Amino acid sequence: MSLIVQKYGGTSVGTIERIEGVADKVAAFRAEGHDIVVAVSAMSGETNRLIGLAKEIQDQPTPRELDVLVSTGEQVTIALLCMALNKRGVPARSYTGSQVKILTDDAHNKARIKSIDEKHIRADLEEGRVVVVAGFQGADEHGNITTLGRGGSDTTAVALAAALKADECQIYTDVDGVYTTDPRVVDRARRMDKITFEEMLEMASLGSKVLQIRAVEFAGKYNVPLRVLHSSQDGPGTLICTDEEVEMENPAISGIAFTRDEAKIMVKGVPDSPGIAYKILGPVSDANIEVDVIVQNFGDDQSTDLTFTVHRNDFIKAKTIVEATAKELGAREVLTDDTIAKISLVGVGMRSHAGIASRMFKALADVNINIEMITTSEIKISVIVDEKFLELGVRALHTAFDLDAPAEA
Amino acid sequence: MSLIVQKYGGTSVGTIERIEGVADKVAAFRAEGHDIVVAVSAMSGETNRLIGLAKEIQDQPTPRELDVLVSTGEQVTIALLCMALNKRGVPARSYTGSQVKILTDDAHNKARIKSIDEKHIRADLEEGRVVVVAGFQGADEHGNITTLGRGGSDTTAVALAAALKADECQIYTDVDGVYTTDPRVVDRARRMDKITFEEMLEMASLGSKVLQIRAVEFAGKYNVPLRVLHSSQDGPGTLICTDEEVEMENPAISGIAFTRDEAKIMVKGVPDSPGIAYKILGPVSDANIEVDVIVQNFGDDQSTDLTFTVHRNDFIKAKTIVEATAKELGAREVLTDDTIAKISLVGVGMRSHAGIASRMFKALADVNINIEMITTSEIKISVIVDEKFLELGVRALHTAFDLDAPAEA
Repeated sequence: MSLIVQKYGGTSVGTIERIEGVADKVAAFRAEGHDIVVAVSAMSGETNRLIGLAKEIQDQPTPRELDVLVSTGEQVTIALLCMALNKRGVPARSYTGSQVKILTDDAHNKARIKSIDEKHIRADLEEGRVVVVAGFQGADEHGNITTLGRGGSDTTAVALAAALKADECQIYTDVDGVYTTDPRVVDRARRMDKITFEEMLEMASLGSKVLQIRAVEFAGKYNVPLRVLHSSQDGPGTLICTDEEVEMENPAISGIAFTRDEAKIMVKGVPDSPGIAYKILGPVSDANIEVDVIVQNFGDDQSTDLTFTVHRNDFIKAKTIVEATAKELGAREVLTDDTIAKISLVGVGMRSHAGIASRMFKALADVNINIEMITTSEIKISVIVDEKFLELGVRALHTAFDLDAPAEA
Repeated sequence: MSLIVQKYGGTSVGTIERIEGVADKVAAFRAEGHDIVVAVSAMSGETNRLIGLAKEIQDQPTPRELDVLVSTGEQVTIALLCMALNKRGVPARSYTGSQVKILTDDAHNKARIKSIDEKHIRADLEEGRVVVVAGFQGADEHGNITTLGRGGSDTTAVALAAALKADECQIYTDVDGVYTTDPRVVDRARRMDKITFEEMLEMASLGSKVLQIRAVEFAGKYNVPLRVLHSSQDGPGTLICTDEEVEMENPAISGIAFTRDEAKIMVKGVPDSPGIAYKILGPVSDANIEVDVIVQNFGDDQSTDLTFTVHRNDFIKAKTIVEATAKELGAREVLTDDTIAKISLVGVGMRSHAGIASRMFKALADVNINIEMITTSEIKISVIVDEKFLELGVRALHTAFDLDAPAEA
């Protein structure tokens, strides 16, 4: 018998019928003798409906009151799920974030969990109840309702699992696990049985949007085994855990992430002087624009070229800022390209395997893809290529690094 | 400068536009220098929508979880109203019942308020804020969310006014005050400027459904001046207050209440023996049926006739029970009539005026209305008549007791 925390997202509880389905699932787990704590999101569409009401009144709703408003979404779900469990003869009790209490800081709309008082939950589990907790919400030290920001229900589940020292935290989604890359791009993408927290972070932040980044960070920090599962299909899903548990079976590369959401800005022929990168990127950062890949090359004429990428949504704003800076600095020209894509190899095995980079570059050269930028980290190598080569590049790499699933019999 | 508690019901906050209207009203009061605490209901239709979701799962939803569910209705309204106030430059802060905290007993779905901790509210008022409290809800001593039952927002407002020793509790409704009788029946019904708590209780319980009975009881107990006002029209409304404040201008009769919701059951020729009324009415009461008017007459043959009325919804059930009992007791027959109506004169002045009853009976006799049953209390005389004479009887009494408004010029 183990203690399991399960999280069901908005789609999984989007209708009364689906809530009944979740109740069936929870009841079945409990029948196997497990202690179950469930974290749920608002029914799909509900959070947007509530925000819509607020925006009819204020373009920028008062943050404290917005939290009071949207936190009702999960409160509705916890009550309905408990009713569905009770109907099945399963004793269950609901808790809002305030009731637990899930203590957060006071940063309304994007609060962070500081601690969880698990005593009520433990008492209920000891009395044989399933405990259903509203995800995405908490309360600050003064009892003001807070929310963790979009997708925060994953974080709630992981934080509950950490506080309760649960055996596993199961995140039910609309996919059956984490794949080596996007199956819509590569037919033979494979579901991974295991992946490390670090790899998952790189996969998630690079566009495989299965889990909230903060939830994965949290799970890694507190060493909570995290499993991604399909909410309506059976299967083992993907377990996200520590290096040690994954290592032995670890290939050099675990997966391939990619994104089309970037744009490139190149400042050419800037007279070289100390702090040139800061002079160009400082104003961009001051405008709250995140910069991703940065590459600086020395030219042959005492000048330098600086190239960086930003999210495509920020492209026009960043371009305007950089053009002004470039003029001040006497740069030769500013070139831009918003039809680029980024492909990243991710794998903790990379640390111990030399030659991953050259193998990657060869695989891309073999299909005549020109690499525009390169950036590397401990467990990741990313390249920027022309957007039109994205699918071709991902497929070539997926094969080159032996990630393809065996052909169907 | 005074402290005013205002309550706005579901219709008054039924749309974003109406919430903005309430915000205008509150802002105007505050501009006059008053301290304002507002209690609000769920947006009209919302509570029924939520109960509908619950009933899709359980015919009899788990009471604790039903409270968690429906309490979200008012929570949405408090947040939206605060946003609307903030937009107008009025600082405001929302509180759920749990946050205040409004301590109740643990009778889910029909909890009673035990105490209100007013310290947060006072602190906010001192800092110049409008305080917006979710009506209809509270929390028990363990922090479980409770609701006061339908219409409980009036009670919340009165309890807040009592705890804060407010100068007045204003209940905004869709009528401009309490009338001498239903204006739909009597054209010349008059709005009363003042009415006593006791009279209001009799008027409310007899069908002039302007205010929740419990709210009036509470206001009377704690001597909170209560004013009924129209939420979108200007006017003084009706002040509900103590005898002393009303007395001097007091006519014998303040108003005429009536109801069509009753049915009559007559057990004739029961062999007379001690406890006969209990033997007949005990089983009715055991079935949770409320009995209203009861009259017992001795026949001339050692037998007795017992007649009583019940709510028309309970008529068939009560009739079945009574027919069985009557058979056991050897009664001659059971007669029933579900086309009756009750008309009641209400007035604290009745205590000091002899002859009200005979004046009433004469007025009805003058228009040939036969009285089927009579019952009296300190400040009320009720008669049961054939339903078809209801309007005629009310109009005749309204004129006979000088309640008619002056004819229009």
